[in-house]
Amino acid sequence: MSMENQHLEAHRLRVEEWLRNCFQDREPRGDLYDAMRYSLLAGGKRIRPVFLLETCRICGGDPEAALPFAGAIEMIHTYSLIHDDLPCMDDDDLRRGRPTNHKVYGEATAVLAGDALLTAAFEFMLDPAVSLPPERVLDAAGVLARAAGGQGMVGGQILDMAGEGHSLGLHEVEELQKLKTGALIAAATEIGCALAGGTAEQRQAVRRYAERLGLAFQIQDDILDVVGDEATLGKPVGSDAKSEKNTFVTLKGLEECRELVVKLTQDAVGALSCFGAEGDGLCQLAESLVNREK
Amino acid sequence: MSMENQHLEAHRLRVEEWLRNCFQDREPRGDLYDAMRYSLLAGGKRIRPVFLLETCRICGGDPEAALPFAGAIEMIHTYSLIHDDLPCMDDDDLRRGRPTNHKVYGEATAVLAGDALLTAAFEFMLDPAVSLPPERVLDAAGVLARAAGGQGMVGGQILDMAGEGHSLGLHEVEELQKLKTGALIAAATEIGCALAGGTAEQRQAVRRYAERLGLAFQIQDDILDVVGDEATLGKPVGSDAKSEKNTFVTLKGLEECRELVVKLTQDAVGALSCFGAEGDGLCQLAESLVNREK
Repeated sequence: MSMENQHLEAHRLRVEEWLRNCFQDREPRGDLYDAMRYSLLAGGKRIRPVFLLETCRICGGDPEAALPFAGAIEMIHTYSLIHDDLPCMDDDDLRRGRPTNHKVYGEATAVLAGDALLTAAFEFMLDPAVSLPPERVLDAAGVLARAAGGQGMVGGQILDMAGEGHSLGLHEVEELQKLKTGALIAAATEIGCALAGGTAEQRQAVRRYAERLGLAFQIQDDILDVVGDEATLGKPVGSDAKSEKNTFVTLKGLEECRELVVKLTQDAVGALSCFGAEGDGLCQLAESLVNREK
Repeated sequence: MSMENQHLEAHRLRVEEWLRNCFQDREPRGDLYDAMRYSLLAGGKRIRPVFLLETCRICGGDPEAALPFAGAIEMIHTYSLIHDDLPCMDDDDLRRGRPTNHKVYGEATAVLAGDALLTAAFEFMLDPAVSLPPERVLDAAGVLARAAGGQGMVGGQILDMAGEGHSLGLHEVEELQKLKTGALIAAATEIGCALAGGTAEQRQAVRRYAERLGLAFQIQDDILDVVGDEATLGKPVGSDAKSEKNTFVTLKGLEECRELVVKLTQDAVGALSCFGAEGDGLCQLAESLVNREK
């Protein structure tokens, strides 16, 4: 996925650099930080941090001051992947074309690396060095906590596991995905707006954008699992069907899903109208996600 | 362990009640909240919350306003026990005389229940309903994040695992325990003081108290593992020796450890002199921990 927009590409590079350096002053604890960095620096797309920083920018805030929050949301995303891949969960050997965390560091360290990444997200957001008003920091960190927990991402995980091998209805799959992937994407934009001290109108607009786009993103994921190229995706194609996952594609078919992705992306883009030309970056981001091949 | 001091007993009852009710407005997510509550309400001693609330009180704060933080630190303690007991970690079947979380709910749910408890700790501390100045909330939640992470509790876990089957020196075991159990106990008192808006002198005093006591507490744990009664402890006696853990008892012997516990507890109590009679509760708590049988 390319980020042709200069703001987006600048955000991506900046967060990448921030993540590369963020643990450098820590005391080593066995191979804990190696394990954390192995997954954190595995070349993810950094979509959530870019959402967060660009939303912050267009709401009038300073993306540089928001970096710890951008890094934090990527840490939470990364920890969820590490725990997801564990033998007792999805039992995956490969992630982004490389051996999964527990394959390299062992299960115990992988569990703890995930725990430490989740905790580090809050360490960075709540660091006394953060140069933003305390009210905004509290607002933003609270949004992320709620999006990541039992009423958000982890809740979606549980529903996903409980649903395997059973057939779920469309409403259930939608609810599950709204929690599992949607909550964190919506949080990214809401946090960006909160840190910028954006208006209630702006906050509602970016949230609506993120909700539509989060759903489109997940449907596109399901499509790619069926039609994607194994080498491009870096994971076995058809793995969802093999584990009897309930996906949008199994429920609605490939063609309807493709149409839905286009429709949802249009809705997402439409929600940004109040930003005028400043919203172009997020619009392009939405379109690049729909057209992505991995 | 009895808490004869009326303040301490009141704190314990109040946090117990708070924990019993804290997830009642949540949407059910499969058996996620059942699993979380199973371990959270398993009759722990609530030492960390009681430390936190009593420190808050003697530093001039309102324990009632600090309840979400008291609950949060117990959630973090509980999540660490759930993950600790997993087959890939200590592989324990019993905890406090009951089957461990993964024995009842399965490994995947146990991992996620731990993740959700850790996250919920921050949800409650960062809840907009918390009625304390934002600066104090940030200070306190930041202390807990740092104490729980790779430079604190999780870091101690990794060192503990890495040390199994090897022989560690006294300095290494001390460092390990300072992180694994000491960090959270020290955080409890520091948070109580921070929420009360205590002075720098008070903060230093309660921190010194907690550091000495945390070490005494862990040495007492090691002693009980050797001499304790299986039925009273609720876990097999001698389990540390069986898994070749490095303990204070294996390093210094039983008698020297007993003396050390007494000495450290005296130091802890001495650190509270600036509080006068108001420090009596924490002094009694220190002594009850030394004299405990489980």
